[in-house]
Amino acid sequence: MPTGHVFIATSLDGFISRPDGSLDWLISPDHAGEDHGYDAFMRDIDAIVMGRGTYEAVLAFDSWPYSKPVLVLSKRLAGTAVPPALHGKVNFADMTPQAAMEHLRQQGASRVYVDGGPIVQAFLRDGLIADMVVSRIPVLIGEGRCLFGPTGRDIAFSHAKTTAFPSGLVQSFYRLKG
Amino acid sequence: MPTGHVFIATSLDGFISRPDGSLDWLISPDHAGEDHGYDAFMRDIDAIVMGRGTYEAVLAFDSWPYSKPVLVLSKRLAGTAVPPALHGKVNFADMTPQAAMEHLRQQGASRVYVDGGPIVQAFLRDGLIADMVVSRIPVLIGEGRCLFGPTGRDIAFSHAKTTAFPSGLVQSFYRLKG
Repeated sequence: MPTGHVFIATSLDGFISRPDGSLDWLISPDHAGEDHGYDAFMRDIDAIVMGRGTYEAVLAFDSWPYSKPVLVLSKRLAGTAVPPALHGKVNFADMTPQAAMEHLRQQGASRVYVDGGPIVQAFLRDGLIADMVVSRIPVLIGEGRCLFGPTGRDIAFSHAKTTAFPSGLVQSFYRLKG
Repeated sequence: MPTGHVFIATSLDGFISRPDGSLDWLISPDHAGEDHGYDAFMRDIDAIVMGRGTYEAVLAFDSWPYSKPVLVLSKRLAGTAVPPALHGKVNFADMTPQAAMEHLRQQGASRVYVDGGPIVQAFLRDGLIADMVVSRIPVLIGEGRCLFGPTGRDIAFSHAKTTAFPSGLVQSFYRLKG
């Protein structure tokens, strides 16, 4: 089975976006010139899994940012047509995390980038996340969409490395324990 | 006015205790021998403010752990008698954060340790926290009592320092910005 990998930024209070999805608190001029390792992370990734929320947020970008195949897990989008510009780049499916990983394995993927709050939570619950790079932005935004959610059990990680950047972003790398 | 200071540990998902208040996930044999700086922090503190939840949790310890005066902010406890063993060590009051800080100023305090989720949140909202030491334990517990809550606005911090300990605890020191 492929391994799942998280690379995500949160506010100090654990939000990945404001309630309306906006990321203005995340994008700071302080970050200019800092390499937070996203490009290096993406080079080692074979496929990306995300939910509808993340997909629609990315659709609003000026251009499609991914060179790797993207699988969007969504009951609502499954069976609808992928926009012509994204043919060959995006697939929609209504699958469990386990089924999605099996599907990606059949397509030759070994490392899968798992993105978006609900999808990260579902893959964590199903034990499909091997490691996480979590970057904390030093601001409390008070409300928004959470990175983490109910787990049903403790999920322990071992800490591999933390790097603090001049902007105040603190990035920690965790591996699933055991 | 005195300055407010936070020194607290949270799970990776931002909880300071389980729903029933238990801290078993926090206390790890891995931590033995690690100095997370609590004693040094406490030496510079003149008084402690906490809510009823934290007070009752601390009451359950084998012995009262604080050598500094403790002010418990609680509608329910205000006007009730402090246990005889804690006379001179603890006071109960029903005060706003601002009034509590003014009260502590009159008692000569200049640095106040602000502890417990709801009390930290109230002091943050009122702009009374100067800095925070937040220690992250590398485990998701999925549910519990939150360190942070609604803020009504963005509250930005500058990052001063992060230390990663062999146990996996990652401790970051933040100062209120501006």
